[in-house]
This record gives sequence, C-alpha cells and structure tokens, in this order.
Amino acid sequence: MKKVVLLRHGESVWNKENRFTGWSDVELSDKGVEEAKRAGEILRKEGYSFDKGFSSVLKRSIKTLWYVLDELDLLWIPVERSWRLNERHYGALQGLNKAETALKYGDEQVHKWRRDSEVYPPALSKSDERYPGNERKYSELKEEELPLTENLNDTIKRVIPYWNEVISPEVKSGKNIIIAAHGNSLRALVKYLDNLSNEEVTNLNIPTGTPLVYELDDELKPIRHYYLGDPEEIRKAEEAVQKQGEAAKEEVASSIRV
Amino acid sequence: MKKVVLLRHGESVWNKENRFTGWSDVELSDKGVEEAKRAGEILRKEGYSFDKGFSSVLKRSIKTLWYVLDELDLLWIPVERSWRLNERHYGALQGLNKAETALKYGDEQVHKWRRDSEVYPPALSKSDERYPGNERKYSELKEEELPLTENLNDTIKRVIPYWNEVISPEVKSGKNIIIAAHGNSLRALVKYLDNLSNEEVTNLNIPTGTPLVYELDDELKPIRHYYLGDPEEIRKAEEAVQKQGEAAKEEVASSIRV
Repeated sequence: MKKVVLLRHGESVWNKENRFTGWSDVELSDKGVEEAKRAGEILRKEGYSFDKGFSSVLKRSIKTLWYVLDELDLLWIPVERSWRLNERHYGALQGLNKAETALKYGDEQVHKWRRDSEVYPPALSKSDERYPGNERKYSELKEEELPLTENLNDTIKRVIPYWNEVISPEVKSGKNIIIAAHGNSLRALVKYLDNLSNEEVTNLNIPTGTPLVYELDDELKPIRHYYLGDPEEIRKAEEAVQKQGEAAKEEVASSIRV
Repeated sequence: MKKVVLLRHGESVWNKENRFTGWSDVELSDKGVEEAKRAGEILRKEGYSFDKGFSSVLKRSIKTLWYVLDELDLLWIPVERSWRLNERHYGALQGLNKAETALKYGDEQVHKWRRDSEVYPPALSKSDERYPGNERKYSELKEEELPLTENLNDTIKRVIPYWNEVISPEVKSGKNIIIAAHGNSLRALVKYLDNLSNEEVTNLNIPTGTPLVYELDDELKPIRHYYLGDPEEIRKAEEAVQKQGEAAKEEVASSIRV
C-alpha cells in the first residue's frame, strides 16, 4: 500500500481580500503561514515523513511546503516545482474581488466560473500585463501551454501528465511523497484519481492547510482517503471554502449600503 | 565570461555560542537570518538573477539560500542540495566551545585544527551519536564517504567532484548559478579555482553573508573575483572570522576569572 499526502496552501493575502487569484503570485497571509506550520505539526505528530516534495511554481504553495518541511526537519529532501501544479488560470478575473464580481454578474455566474468544470472565465488578451508569457518563470513553456483562461478540464489536462509521468513513478518506487498545491489543481488530481463526474467534483471543496492522505494500491488506484487533524476544524474549513463567494458579497453589499 | 556567486551562510546559533559546528545541523541565529536577507538585497540592487541554486544539506545554508531567493523573487527556480557542499566535518570537536577548547589545548593547536589543510581534529567513533551514519539524511552515502573527521584536503576531495561533475556543466551552459555553503567548503572550492597552496589558504577567511562573485572564462578559469556590498563592512566581517578563536577565549578567561 502506498500513501500520498496532498496539501492545499494556507490562506493567501488575496484569499483574505476575497480576490480571484489563479496564476497571480501572491504571498501567504500571516494566517496562511500559521496554517502551513500547523499542517507540519499535525504530520509530525501523526508520524509522517517524506522522501520528496512537489509544489507549483507559485510562492503560496512553495512556502506552504517549506514551512511543513521545516517543521518535520526535512528541508534537505529534494523538492521539484512545476507550473503544471499551478492553480487554475482565472483569466481576466484574476485580481478582481469575488464579491464585487458577484454583485455585477450575479451569484449564479460566479458559482459557474468557480465550480463548473466546463465553464471558462473571460480570457486575458496576450497584451495584458497578466499574460504568463510575460514572466521569466514561464519562459520555457510552449505558446500553446500558456493559458489565457482555463476551465477545470484544462487544468486536469496539464496536471495529470505530470502526475503520471513525474510523480507516479516516484510513488511506485516506494517513496513517500507530499504535494503542496492549490484548490483547483488538487481538485483536478482528485477528480482523476477517484474518477469523479463533472457533477461530483462541483461540490468538492478541499480545505486549506489540511493534509489529505490518499492510500493507493500498487497500481495507484485509491483504496481510501482521509484528512488529518481535528474533524470539527476540518468541517469548518470545508464550509468556509464553499461559502466564500456569498458571505463576502453580503459584506460588500452592506458596506455599500452604509 | 561566466559568473558564479558564492555565499557563506549567515551566523548560526553555534557561531554565536562560539562552538565547533561541522556537520551539526544548527539553525541560523536572528542575526544570521538578517545577514541572509541583506545578501539578497545587495544581489537585487546589483541586478543579479539566477537560474539555479545549490546548497549543502545543512539547514543554515539551505535557509540562507531561501532568504536570498525570496528577496530576489526566485523561490521557483530549481535548487539542488548535496552533502558534498557540507561544512568540513569537525570530528569529536563538534559541539565543543572554541574558546574553552583553546584554553585546554592552546591557541596554536586550535588554530591548526581550524586552519591547517592537513591537520585532523580528533575523530568520532562510529558509536558516537554524532556519527553521520546515524542520520537518514546520509543514508545513501557509502560507508567510506561518511566522515569521522576531516582535514581541509578531505573536504576538497568531496567538494571538487561535485563542482566538476554537477555545477560546472550548468555554468558552462550559460546558467547563472548561486552556491550557498560554508566557510570551509567554500575555502575548498576557492583553493581549487585559484590554485592556492596550503599556506595561502590558511589565511583565507570568507566572511558570512557576503556575496563573493567569481568571473570565469569559458574553461572556468578565474579571471577575477570580488565581494559585493560595502567595503568597510566586508573588511570587518573578514576580521571577525579571523579573530573568532582569540577574542572569545578572552571572554571565557575573564568570566572564569570573575
């Protein structure tokens, strides 16, 4: 039996400000740093150790993995970073406030943009300063790999080859692996592993900073999965992700009213 | 013309306590963290950027590189860590106070242990808890690679193959490289690059947290080298390393006297 640990990064400053983030490379908030350290503590107490770590090239996942490995005294293990584990690209929504966007386009539209596997947020143009082709970090990508926007199925298309070709061989060889990534790149991986339908994945909310353990057979088919940590805290964290749009919208509405 | 940046880690808690460190995996002190961040700032202001980083598997060099890359917004670049860049192994002196050791064995003996390329500190036994064979980090080393003690020439023998086989090809291919390592693993590299005699390297003191730039020709022969930063601060930092043993010994002597 193999085990892989998935970890969604802690709160970022844009999570806190309730803005669409995607490939925008924002910092962890102070709370996010605490969440990452706490995840490391939980893993340590549960006796986990790792041979190799993976993360995206976005600093909120890089730093989350760093704090976890520091807590486990494993900063010396190899870590590989790839754009393929990046958050879903949110197109022209990146940087916009989710609640203001919900007021403008309606709850239903925002929910579709956030959760429907096939719906695309409005695309960036290549002249937009947010276009990933402007960043040195992505200079080795082919033009067709540089997203202008993505739906969840696009994210799956870039995450799964990395899982199959890079991460899986390490897991099969018996290495203990941790993957620090993002809400949607992890939903992409889970959709693939558990063979979820578009409908099933719509309601899948992975909480931040909560280690998610997948037990896999020798062919890497999932046997079972579970979160580590206090069940009540996990439930609250899942709810928080789900309610993000609405609650914040009310705050804005009431601040506009006042 | 190629450039490589060498960086000795910032002050560790054992530098601060004036203890022999070697392969003991101690944390950076608060001052050491500041030195690392300051080195990053200097590199940023001087317009440096990097394609790849190298460090030892000891956290004081891992963290120094981390703070530098964070300052340069380069946490996403690949980093490779190797025991071959570790500090010289200090044998049974590891953990002992330098000043107390100087009181016991004399200044001259301590100076030889610290600076003579051929003198060995007293060796560990394999039953010693400090023996690197006890650490998972070194589980892939062959027994003959696990040191019980090292002189500088031993350190050179493990650092240079790594330079020639792993780092040099990257430099030759045009990549900008930064190496965060230790007083003696960097002295080993500099002795090799500049073809210094045992006598010449005795007086070579590389200050902590001060970027040292080597300009190399296409065959990686050094053209010139220089430190980045304020010349007066660099002079003081070099002096501080040189005087480390004596000054601290006086403190202990006077505290014993009182």
